[in-house]
Amino acid sequence: MKRYEQVVQTLAQRIEQGVYRVGDRLPSIRALCREQGVSVSTAQEAYRRLEEAGFAEARPRSGYYVLPRTTPSVLPKVSRPAQRPLDVSQWDQVLELVRGTPGEDEMLMLGRGIPDLGAATLRPLQRLLATLHRRVDARGLNYDSLAGSRELRQQVARQATTSGCLLHPDDVLITTGCQEALSLSLRTLTAPGEVVAVDSPSFYGTMQILKAQGLKALEIPTDPQIGISLEALELALEQWPVRAIQVTPTCNNPLGYTMPEPRKQALVALAQRFDVAIIEDDIYGDLAFTTPRPRTIKSFDDEGRVLLCSSFSKTLVPGLRVGWMAPGRYRDQAMHMKYVSTGASATLPQQAVAEFIAHGYYERHLHEMNRQYQRHRDILLGWVERYFPAGTGVSYPQGGFLLWLELPGGIDCVRLNDRLARERLHIAPGSLFSASGKYRHCLRLNYAAPLTASIEAAVQRVGETVMAMQEEQAALVS
Amino acid sequence: MKRYEQVVQTLAQRIEQGVYRVGDRLPSIRALCREQGVSVSTAQEAYRRLEEAGFAEARPRSGYYVLPRTTPSVLPKVSRPAQRPLDVSQWDQVLELVRGTPGEDEMLMLGRGIPDLGAATLRPLQRLLATLHRRVDARGLNYDSLAGSRELRQQVARQATTSGCLLHPDDVLITTGCQEALSLSLRTLTAPGEVVAVDSPSFYGTMQILKAQGLKALEIPTDPQIGISLEALELALEQWPVRAIQVTPTCNNPLGYTMPEPRKQALVALAQRFDVAIIEDDIYGDLAFTTPRPRTIKSFDDEGRVLLCSSFSKTLVPGLRVGWMAPGRYRDQAMHMKYVSTGASATLPQQAVAEFIAHGYYERHLHEMNRQYQRHRDILLGWVERYFPAGTGVSYPQGGFLLWLELPGGIDCVRLNDRLARERLHIAPGSLFSASGKYRHCLRLNYAAPLTASIEAAVQRVGETVMAMQEEQAALVS
Repeated sequence: MKRYEQVVQTLAQRIEQGVYRVGDRLPSIRALCREQGVSVSTAQEAYRRLEEAGFAEARPRSGYYVLPRTTPSVLPKVSRPAQRPLDVSQWDQVLELVRGTPGEDEMLMLGRGIPDLGAATLRPLQRLLATLHRRVDARGLNYDSLAGSRELRQQVARQATTSGCLLHPDDVLITTGCQEALSLSLRTLTAPGEVVAVDSPSFYGTMQILKAQGLKALEIPTDPQIGISLEALELALEQWPVRAIQVTPTCNNPLGYTMPEPRKQALVALAQRFDVAIIEDDIYGDLAFTTPRPRTIKSFDDEGRVLLCSSFSKTLVPGLRVGWMAPGRYRDQAMHMKYVSTGASATLPQQAVAEFIAHGYYERHLHEMNRQYQRHRDILLGWVERYFPAGTGVSYPQGGFLLWLELPGGIDCVRLNDRLARERLHIAPGSLFSASGKYRHCLRLNYAAPLTASIEAAVQRVGETVMAMQEEQAALVS
Repeated sequence: MKRYEQVVQTLAQRIEQGVYRVGDRLPSIRALCREQGVSVSTAQEAYRRLEEAGFAEARPRSGYYVLPRTTPSVLPKVSRPAQRPLDVSQWDQVLELVRGTPGEDEMLMLGRGIPDLGAATLRPLQRLLATLHRRVDARGLNYDSLAGSRELRQQVARQATTSGCLLHPDDVLITTGCQEALSLSLRTLTAPGEVVAVDSPSFYGTMQILKAQGLKALEIPTDPQIGISLEALELALEQWPVRAIQVTPTCNNPLGYTMPEPRKQALVALAQRFDVAIIEDDIYGDLAFTTPRPRTIKSFDDEGRVLLCSSFSKTLVPGLRVGWMAPGRYRDQAMHMKYVSTGASATLPQQAVAEFIAHGYYERHLHEMNRQYQRHRDILLGWVERYFPAGTGVSYPQGGFLLWLELPGGIDCVRLNDRLARERLHIAPGSLFSASGKYRHCLRLNYAAPLTASIEAAVQRVGETVMAMQEEQAALVS
């Protein structure tokens, strides 16, 4: 056995024994040389082989990380929604998910879209907020200007260059969270009874806007790796009077895919051909695992027909409620909608976020978070593989901190939640993400915060409960 | 001449010579005794006579204050709006008023609805905010619960008892400013094309909601002392399919009146008879000059048909965007609308306001502000009398910090604003407060912040400009 093969074997054994677990960083080349008494080239060769064998992956400027033992063998299926305009339901389930603060009733919410709020790189934000609130007297708590603070709009415009967007600060409108941006967009573009095409599954917050405004959702088949089917969308645009296309093309919620750039470009062309507006939800876009981050659809739009919506709720903290939109040619109407919706947004949080970006803290925070989230994705994939029944479909997120599971054998995740409630656990059932409650056999999990032993135990319990339900079903059938 | 008569004469002379000016506090009884070498009963008698003669007024537990020389002789007329459902216009003028932060472009905004942000009694709020932001780490910046923080809802419910309202914390929904509360109310109650009855003149923010939602405004004649005409409203309810009645019955914006309680009660009875909901904007209600503050319409409602809307933007500071509503029987729909509009409201500002109220700071602040605003009202009334043409109608606010002027001779306040812009002055033209731009000959002034010499000079310039425009008109006619 060659020297490097011995090293490979040692490392592989340690991984199998759980000394290094999924997502852990393996020893550096230097450390490995020291520990095993081998040369740098031998250590390098060992890692290359380990990588080839699918045990580990190299991450630029960081090192080698333990991969889930197999890449997920089953992806969720391409969705096949109804493809006719539907009224939106499911509010009760959404309400259950968002009613309380997590921890308030000691329910462990495994499915909510909340980032890791314990990150060290968020500390400068707290410092900035505390300093601002100490420094600024009540006069600084006047109404801000309606479009939002100029400093923040400037920073947002600068930051948008990383997604290929050239925005002027005046193109940006600060909102009270991304939810308001999406809401204003839909109110700007549509009237009750009209039809909006959406990717499917689709963020429940947007679906509920459709419901509240009496709009109809036209759910378009969506591929878990490349996003909304342009072919199906084209057919739908020919068939139905679609007023707007609503998509989350980058680090999609809940599926985690990023649409390939050529498809983003083709989507803009399609919208042009049918003269329809696009609402682009980019709230997770800055959390992509690649550098530079993927381009937005907006970056391919030279007609101002894309309304780009985002916020700092997933990249920083949700409780500041600082969001923004770049509404393109619809700016004037969006501004009116913003005025009647909430007036100017809160003053000091805007300043704090602007300074956080200006000082470079935002970039550093993103860098750390994206490494963490990628690591966590791999760990959670490992757990799902270990604890969920064979045949469970799993997404392979390109960014963000949300995993989508498709359970085999028609397990109902609303019923699953009822069972989990006894153990104070809660997952986001897939039915939230459909106008008519499809995807009941799917669920969303969050891997943002540190994946502690108690989270692992909770994931394991979910998996066990699913398997118990499968067995009960099987018993009923036989 | 009796001793007390000499004292009266001395004080009257000083007032006429401007030693004491309108709104100033006169010497205390004790100080007057010392200064004039008279007994307490003589000093008391002197003040009684001064009061009778209309020079001063006594304020409980405070002292004697100089009154404007005559009470305003001309009140604004009872409004006579169109009384048929109208589409709302005037957005451009509203945008001009709210686009920028005051001071940003060094324009002196004399007409905006902004409280005195320099008040010493606001300092504990800043302290609380600074402490909270220092103490709470990023985990405290998670999404709050959708209905809002329980502590704040508790405080709001307790505070509401001062207006005769018995609310449970669960009856309260925290919003992002009163504007969101009003917006959610209208979205909860109406669909595009429907008719909403409003007092007239009416807050432009509400009018613009009607515009944004494609609603029609049915403007009801309104008396500058007792509010919306119930007689005219009854006729309107018989004639038109009114979906909601929107009023600001306490410390009305812009007219300053408070509807007498029997009329509030009668309004509820009318709404019951026609089975229509009432949206009650109470944003200035806590700023009434009487103790206890007037009752809300909501306090007479035992069917849950009144949606009470308010915020801390006028009583504390606007830039926190903390508002609330008590939507009565419409709570579930309002909650859904809240979710789709902005999700949960920002977390820490709610906590800060809750603690501010709990510690008794709010009550103290209101007490101080209401004394200040009442004093300022009298001063501004004096200036209007001095600097504006004879025949100018002036409101007599019962609370809040806004004065309404009705100019004689058909002066156009939009044109007036154009002229004032050259001197970096801006008033709120009356046309903002009407669906179709009526009240162009009216304007709103703010007397919240200290009425400095430069504010006096500005008010004088507005009056002079009005008179110059009158003369030009007269020259054209002759």
